Formats: sequence, C-alpha cells, structure tokens
Amino acid sequence: MVTQQLVENLLKTKMDDIPEEVKLHGKKSLYNWMGVAIGAAHHPSVDMVLGLKEDIGSAGQVSVFGRTEKVDILLGSLINGMSSHIFDYDDTHLDTIHHPSGPVAPVVLALGEKMNLTGEQVLHAFILGCEAELRIANAVYPSHYHLGYHITSSTGVFGAAVAAGILLGLDEEQMAWALGIAGTQSFGLREMFGTMTKPFHPGKAAQNGLMAALLAKKNFTSSTEVLEAKRGFANVLAPQHDLSKVNVRWGTDWELLKNAFKPYACGIVLHPSIDACIALGKQAKAEDIERIELTVNPYVLELTGKPTPPTGLAGKFSIYHTGAIAFLEGDAAEAQYADEKVRDPAVVAFREKIKPKVDHSVKEEEVYAKAYLKDDSIIEHTVKYATGSIENPMDDAALERKFNNLVHPIIGAERAEALRGLMYRMEELGQLEELIGLTKAEKIFN
Amino acid sequence: MVTQQLVENLLKTKMDDIPEEVKLHGKKSLYNWMGVAIGAAHHPSVDMVLGLKEDIGSAGQVSVFGRTEKVDILLGSLINGMSSHIFDYDDTHLDTIHHPSGPVAPVVLALGEKMNLTGEQVLHAFILGCEAELRIANAVYPSHYHLGYHITSSTGVFGAAVAAGILLGLDEEQMAWALGIAGTQSFGLREMFGTMTKPFHPGKAAQNGLMAALLAKKNFTSSTEVLEAKRGFANVLAPQHDLSKVNVRWGTDWELLKNAFKPYACGIVLHPSIDACIALGKQAKAEDIERIELTVNPYVLELTGKPTPPTGLAGKFSIYHTGAIAFLEGDAAEAQYADEKVRDPAVVAFREKIKPKVDHSVKEEEVYAKAYLKDDSIIEHTVKYATGSIENPMDDAALERKFNNLVHPIIGAERAEALRGLMYRMEELGQLEELIGLTKAEKIFN
Repeated sequence: MVTQQLVENLLKTKMDDIPEEVKLHGKKSLYNWMGVAIGAAHHPSVDMVLGLKEDIGSAGQVSVFGRTEKVDILLGSLINGMSSHIFDYDDTHLDTIHHPSGPVAPVVLALGEKMNLTGEQVLHAFILGCEAELRIANAVYPSHYHLGYHITSSTGVFGAAVAAGILLGLDEEQMAWALGIAGTQSFGLREMFGTMTKPFHPGKAAQNGLMAALLAKKNFTSSTEVLEAKRGFANVLAPQHDLSKVNVRWGTDWELLKNAFKPYACGIVLHPSIDACIALGKQAKAEDIERIELTVNPYVLELTGKPTPPTGLAGKFSIYHTGAIAFLEGDAAEAQYADEKVRDPAVVAFREKIKPKVDHSVKEEEVYAKAYLKDDSIIEHTVKYATGSIENPMDDAALERKFNNLVHPIIGAERAEALRGLMYRMEELGQLEELIGLTKAEKIFN
Repeated sequence: MVTQQLVENLLKTKMDDIPEEVKLHGKKSLYNWMGVAIGAAHHPSVDMVLGLKEDIGSAGQVSVFGRTEKVDILLGSLINGMSSHIFDYDDTHLDTIHHPSGPVAPVVLALGEKMNLTGEQVLHAFILGCEAELRIANAVYPSHYHLGYHITSSTGVFGAAVAAGILLGLDEEQMAWALGIAGTQSFGLREMFGTMTKPFHPGKAAQNGLMAALLAKKNFTSSTEVLEAKRGFANVLAPQHDLSKVNVRWGTDWELLKNAFKPYACGIVLHPSIDACIALGKQAKAEDIERIELTVNPYVLELTGKPTPPTGLAGKFSIYHTGAIAFLEGDAAEAQYADEKVRDPAVVAFREKIKPKVDHSVKEEEVYAKAYLKDDSIIEHTVKYATGSIENPMDDAALERKFNNLVHPIIGAERAEALRGLMYRMEELGQLEELIGLTKAEKIFN
C-alpha cells in the first residue's frame, strides 16, 4: 500500500499544488547543483567516462554541462550526475545525509533537452523526484546508511525514476512499475568513499532510474509493492525502517525545504569542525598550537577518520587534513583538497595536532573545539549549527559566490550571470535551449 | 586480502591451466545458454527493451541473438542476458541457486564480436568470470539469498566484470578496481520474481559488470577491497558469510563443474516435484486423484507458494500450477507455462489437488510425493535427485533436444546444427563472425 499511495500522491500533485516557497527552493537547488556539476566537468574522472563514448556507441543526444560533447540520455545522466558529486560540494538533506539533486537533476535536464520540454515541466518533475527520494530516505535512515549504503544512490534511484516518470507521462500502474524497476537496482556501498566510485553513485542512480521509467513506459512489468514487500527494498536494505514516513503529511510538509547548500567542498559532517577551526585560526598562530581537540559525535569520526589521506579526494574524508587546512587557510574549498595540499609539509605537520574525541552526547551537527596552546592557554569554540545548515543557511549572495567560484573558470562570468538569471525563472521558460547553451564550455577560462 | 588474492588468482590462470573437463563444461554451458537466449529472443519484454534503441541513442555494435537488430555493447549485454533468463530455463549452480552464464556469456560474446576476439579468448574469459561469481556466491549463500537478494545478479555482476576485465587486459590494480565498481553496483530483489524485472536482473548485471571493467581500463579508481571491507559487499549484503570460500583450492576445484542444465522451464527447486508428478501421471488418471501431497523443504514452498498464478510467468513460481501440468501433461516446458495454460479449467481444477507440505528434514533437492486416490489407494514416489541435477544430469542428447526445441522455431534446424558444431569447438575458432552469424534470425520459423 505504501508504494501505491506514493504513486497516487505523485500523480495528483500538479505544479499549482506546490507552494511558491518550495518552487523557489527547487530552483535554488537546481542552481546550486548546476554550479557543482559545471565546476567538476573537467575532472579526470569525467574525461575517463566521456572517453568511453565511442567504445560504447553512444549517440549525441544531450549536453554534458561545462563541456561541448553531447552523449546519449543515459550516459548524459550518468556523467552529469557524477560530475555534480565529485567535489562533495552538492546539496544535502541533513536529516538523512542525502544529496537529493544528484540523481534527479541530470535526468530532468536530459529529458528536458531531448524532448524539448518547458522549464515548468522540468521544475515540477525535479521537485517531485526529490520529494519522493527524500521521503524514502527518511523511512530507512539511519539503519540503511549505518549498514553501509550510500543513501544518495540507493534511494536516489527512486527519485530519478519518479522524475523521469512524470516527464514521460506514466500512468499509475506504469509509475508503480518504474518504482519497482528502480528499487530493485538500488545500490551503492560506502566502502567506495574516497575513490572516483563515490561520485559515480548518484550518476549511476540517475541512469538506472531513467532506464526504469523508460521501460515502464513500454509496459515492462515489475512489482507494484517494491517499498513494502517482504523481499522488497525496505526489508532487504534497511534493518530498521518506518515506511509511514513515505506518505506522511504529503502536500503539507515538503522535505525539499530541508535541503541545504554546502559552503565547504566536503561531507556535511565535517562542516562544524571547519567552522570551528576557521574561527580558531583567526585567534591563534599555527606555531603556537600544541593541539586542537575536536569533540564530535562518534559517527563523524567513523566517516572521516583517515589520519593520512593519500590524495586530495581522500582528504575530504579526513578530519585531520580538513581541520588542518581550515585552521591554516581559513577555508575548505576545492583548492584546499588539491593533491598537492595533502602532501604540503605544513599541512602534514599540522594535521598531527588535530585530535578528534568522540562523545555520544554531542550531536552530529555540533562540535566542541578546544585549542591547547604551547603557553598553556586554551581557546574554546563551540558550533551548534554549521554555516550552510538549515538553521544557519548560506544567503543568496553566498550561494552566488559559490556558484561563480565554481563556474567562472569554465564558462566565464558573463554566461554565469545569464545562467543564474534563467535558472531563477525556470518555470517561465518555454524551452531549455538557451539555458543549456549557456552551460557549454568551448574553452576553459583560467 | 580476499579481493587481492582473487585478482591474483584470476590473472595467473591461463587457458592451459584449465582442465579439459572444465573447458568442455564451459562450452556446454555456453551452448545451453545460447539456446535459452535465442529461444526467448522474441518475447514481448525483449521487444520492449529493443524498442528503446532509438530513444536511448544506441549504436549498432553487436548482435542480439535470435534477432537481426544490432545494438551497442552495453544494451546488447542487457538484452542477451535478459533473454536467456526469461524462460527460467538457464543453467543453475545448485549449491547457490545461481545461474552463472546469464551475467557472463552476453559480455564475453559482445566483446568477442566487437573486438574480433578468438573463441579461445572468449571461452577463457567466460570460464574465469563464472568461476569468480560462483565462488563469491558460495561465500555469501544462503544468508544473502534468504535476506532477499537475487544472487544471480547480485554476485553475477562480479562475474561480468571479471570476464570483461580479462578480455580488456586489465592489470592487477585495474582488476581490483573493476571488482570494486562492479560490487558497489550489486543489486536485485527477489520481490521481482514473477515479473519481467526478474530476467532483467542478469542482463543488467552483465551491463553493470561490463561498464565496471571499461571504467577500470581507463584507470577509474575504486576500492581494492570490495569483498572484505567493513562497508563492502559481504558485510553489507550478507548477514552471514565466509569469504575463505572465494579463493579456497583455486585451480584445483572448479565450481563451474557443478553447473547443471535444466530440463524444465522453471526454477530448479520445483524440478523434483515435476519429476514426481510426471511419474505419478503415468500411473493414475486425473479423475481418480483425490489429492497429491508433495512434502518438500520449507524453502521450496517459500519460493513457489503462489496458489493462483495470474500469468504463465507467475505459474513458474507456483508449485500448484507446476504440479498440475506435470501430472496432466507429463512435462514442464515453455508450453506448460503459456498464459492460456494457467487459465485452462482442467489445470485450474487439478491444481486444487496439489497439497504441498513442508518438512525441515527433507532436503531442497528432494520430494516425497504421495498420490491419494479416490478408491483409497496411495501411490508414492520419492525423488532424491531430480533430472538435470549433477547426480542425475541431462545427457548430451537431451541437451541437444532442449536446444533444438528452443531454437528451431527461430533459426531453423540447419543453422541450429551448424551452431552446435561451432560452439563445441569454440576454442579453435579464430573469430566469432560465423558463429554469431548463425544466431541471427531474419524470420521466425513456425
């Protein structure tokens, strides 16, 4: 009944039923997503996947954002979804550590481009796709994540299927099948964190979900009870779950409103520590520091306990590296996670001074930081809500700065500004051609 | 260490290290697989996926067996892998209820066709791919399957990646990455049994594994410990497991030799009951039967407990329908699982007489059948090893009959015979062009 109810809720929710506040947050989510997707579009891992285009016989149907190549809709969904997660800088639903746009945005934009859809259609499908995946994530978090699943792909595949299904005009039975075909393809191991395979996850979830909806449109049959069945998604992939969360207060509460944007280019669990170390860095010099004690929830250290990250990417999963660069450089953007940075002797030396402590009474979104100085003085700094949280969000100007920092080197300032303008009035666009044209990079500005 | 050891074992095992007996069983496995793949090539679900070819921009790189269309290597792997599992008539590794060829054969044949490889290369990669997935299946069975995973896709993805990796010439690090990229994509819910999404599983596993190897060849990084890591495959997807089974007696024991071929077009767990009901049907008339008691392992009924299957496909998961048609018609081939057959009043009436009983002391491969006649007499029939089991295998003539029954309506008798000849001397073929040419069907013979 849960799956069926979700299908009914999705199909009855038209654009007019969505509050303006939700539409605006949907547009901001897409804008933030586009920034991180374009920003990483020339990463070596993107080159690798794009390098397969001829080998796998992919036709030029849709655009790869931040590039000039065109690929088929499935490969395009994979690449754009992957690109947006490479910097670990995309949006986050903090209740579930889920990154909602990654699996959904590439699908709605690929279909929007290929099928020549309106901005309103694309935004509508995007919002419903995100809402579906986030509610499913609510139902299985935390046991599903703690077991070892990368929840962004494992539940994101539902969001991708829903969004594609809306755009393809699936009927009730087809939408239930699409959820079935998507859900059986749910995947993603947290073991992959720190390798190129992590950002591959949301891209592949986008691709799998899109394929699910395309098949359902052809009347390819599947289970119509994938969420609740005995051998279905929740029972198999989540030791504990509460499926009532999938449909609760549908149309009244909007999970998408809890989607937060990251000021820092790493996992959200490190953001309180970054805020704290930046603050401490303004109050003391590196050479005066004996050690910095960061008291965090045990879970934070479980995710970020790598003491000697070999690459910049691995540095994003290291509280030691991250604390060090935040203190030393006052930021944690892509530049602080370059490969050279994790090998920088000053950073390597300082990360030895970062001493995480775990305490179950500390919440995941908090940190209690204490800098012990060589002169025996102590500086304390407590973060209850990190910058970029729902309680302490990035403002529009900060979001624009983040976007521009990411895309200016690739598409230049003029197109970045024009793209922002179009994305903030997405629902008025009769088609996406101009918007997508602005994302193309003939060359990289440096 | 388990993953690394598997990689070393795979890369050191050359064709000369493989016993002749294993090579022969590999060829029989491919032959049996080709029969079921061609046999189902015109199923509506194949038409549906092929119907997406233009929508998803797929180039004509490789053949769909039993058809004339060509598609890209990823879509080809999906379709051929799916086709081979549609009739639930493919091979089975009885220790794990795994169907080894489904995820591996389409990949080696697609790469063989596209890269113009020799038959020996293709057979070598096929054998190693099967051996890898079967050993991984051994390590996680039964807890993984009982939890709800369709083990054919969830472990088959490793086999596909290994086979593709061998053909692409991956080095040690790349092969470990390929296993990582494959393993994180492990998927497949048993809830899908009885729908088109079940056969989709091995096809999608083939596709995912092939993509994993293609990416690894480009140096796309991943975990090198996917099997044993804390948040890796075994810990996340199998509540109990024994990873020592992955590499034990490598090169001495060959799991592929335990691969059995099915005489009946349904899941292996029903085969003892079919043998028994066919035997009872030869000894009594339908109208004289009061009831037939089939005492089976509880697991058999868990998989096949559907009392009133609505379609022929669902009938394959019904001990009631299957027992009825075996008794009434003396067979359980595709014809007995036609949609008309599950609606046939005689079959519907007789399935009410099939009374399964569960008993933990009965093994999964056994059945104790008792026919209670209206005249109060009882006929008993016990099956210890069903036809098609390792202990009671199909002989070569039976395998050829099965193949011919499947492919004659599609490619005709002459090409079926020629195809058999080439497949049994696979390792001598300088290239696959002629073999693959024989699988093409310009028309369906009827």
